[in-house]
Amino acid sequence: MKYKIVLAYEGTAYAGWQYQPARPTIQGRLNSVLERLAGEPVVTHAAGRTDAGVHAEGQVVSFDLPRCRAARELVKALNGNLPADIRALAAEPVAASFHARFDARAKTYRYRIAASEVMSPFLARYAWHFPYSLDDDRLRRDALTFVGRHDFLGFTVAEVDTKTTVRTLTEARVERDGSLLEFYFSGEGFLRYQVRTMVAALLAINRGRLAVDSMAELIARRDRRLIGAPAPAQGLTLMKVEY
Amino acid sequence: MKYKIVLAYEGTAYAGWQYQPARPTIQGRLNSVLERLAGEPVVTHAAGRTDAGVHAEGQVVSFDLPRCRAARELVKALNGNLPADIRALAAEPVAASFHARFDARAKTYRYRIAASEVMSPFLARYAWHFPYSLDDDRLRRDALTFVGRHDFLGFTVAEVDTKTTVRTLTEARVERDGSLLEFYFSGEGFLRYQVRTMVAALLAINRGRLAVDSMAELIARRDRRLIGAPAPAQGLTLMKVEY
Repeated sequence: MKYKIVLAYEGTAYAGWQYQPARPTIQGRLNSVLERLAGEPVVTHAAGRTDAGVHAEGQVVSFDLPRCRAARELVKALNGNLPADIRALAAEPVAASFHARFDARAKTYRYRIAASEVMSPFLARYAWHFPYSLDDDRLRRDALTFVGRHDFLGFTVAEVDTKTTVRTLTEARVERDGSLLEFYFSGEGFLRYQVRTMVAALLAINRGRLAVDSMAELIARRDRRLIGAPAPAQGLTLMKVEY
Repeated sequence: MKYKIVLAYEGTAYAGWQYQPARPTIQGRLNSVLERLAGEPVVTHAAGRTDAGVHAEGQVVSFDLPRCRAARELVKALNGNLPADIRALAAEPVAASFHARFDARAKTYRYRIAASEVMSPFLARYAWHFPYSLDDDRLRRDALTFVGRHDFLGFTVAEVDTKTTVRTLTEARVERDGSLLEFYFSGEGFLRYQVRTMVAALLAINRGRLAVDSMAELIARRDRRLIGAPAPAQGLTLMKVEY
């Protein structure tokens, strides 16, 4: 029986979603719990392979179990065996053909910035400390430049392993609550480091630190060396995946 | 020159405020940074000696430094040397007679409960998972019973080291945001474990698990064995201290 579960995790302690031998990963933890429940190895697929230190409020994972389980019972069994920083929020049986990654229609990521002189110790694991003044109107305008279909070659890692670097963003939103800035990006899919590099670019251009006149020009240049390091992992959260 | 600073900390990694040799404590970390800045040992006094795992949004600490420093510069120097889970939020010079503990007029603590079936991994370090239904009206009524001057002998540790166990509470408030319950308690001072034991009593009586008819009777019995274990440390935060 094929299942789809929604997973939330606090990524600080993990080397990302993807299984790695001898390193703590979300997939590694989940797989060993599922193997214990199923009595045999279980293959899992996540909607998005989050990097080390990245969090999730609504990661989606699919897998086959050899026998049927009530959704509620599956959630309980998972949470009874997973560590407190990984929680199953929901589960449901799905069609045998369902695949959490290939069937995902849209993903939403949030990136958090603590734009205060002193960063609260309660945000240290969940935001990037960026103690500089920012022009919110320009942030919003520049973020909107990302919306639409663009070649994001300049916003990913050097070793691209995808067929195309063209992606379509459907939403780019900036919200501020006091000194806490939140960027929300939605789209059908994202390249590796894309969100964190977009955030780094938004902040750098806002501070006048980029050798381009506009975000549109930066996108068009398709040159990742212009931006520098992506924003750090701890600010990023995979919020939801839509099917 | 005597200084008063406001300190916020995420207490998860620490064995509490009070210095202990060979264990990580907030005071230990602060003292070594101050000793480095001052060039000599510095004696620190906190308004409240928070226990292991307890957090602070507004702890207040006083100490003498051998030479004057601008408040802003002191905050910067502290945060440049303290770990990210301990932050100085503010500093100000005070009268030589000032003492963070003896001069405190009122303290406010918050206790957080995640009253949902599944606890968010982002609350695991900051709340007590209590997945049961609760009668909010009764919680509010019972909490108000604590307000006023009472002998809280039944709400502290067995080995009381204070002259009196009589304390005066000025406020007891219950707030709910979805499944997140927050208790706020204000008073001139609290006994060790008092807030956590009051919370444990509020929840136990709400669930019909206490062998008393009312919170007033529980207070009057002055018997800590009636309540059982105090609510766990991670839900508690020292919010502010007033002078």
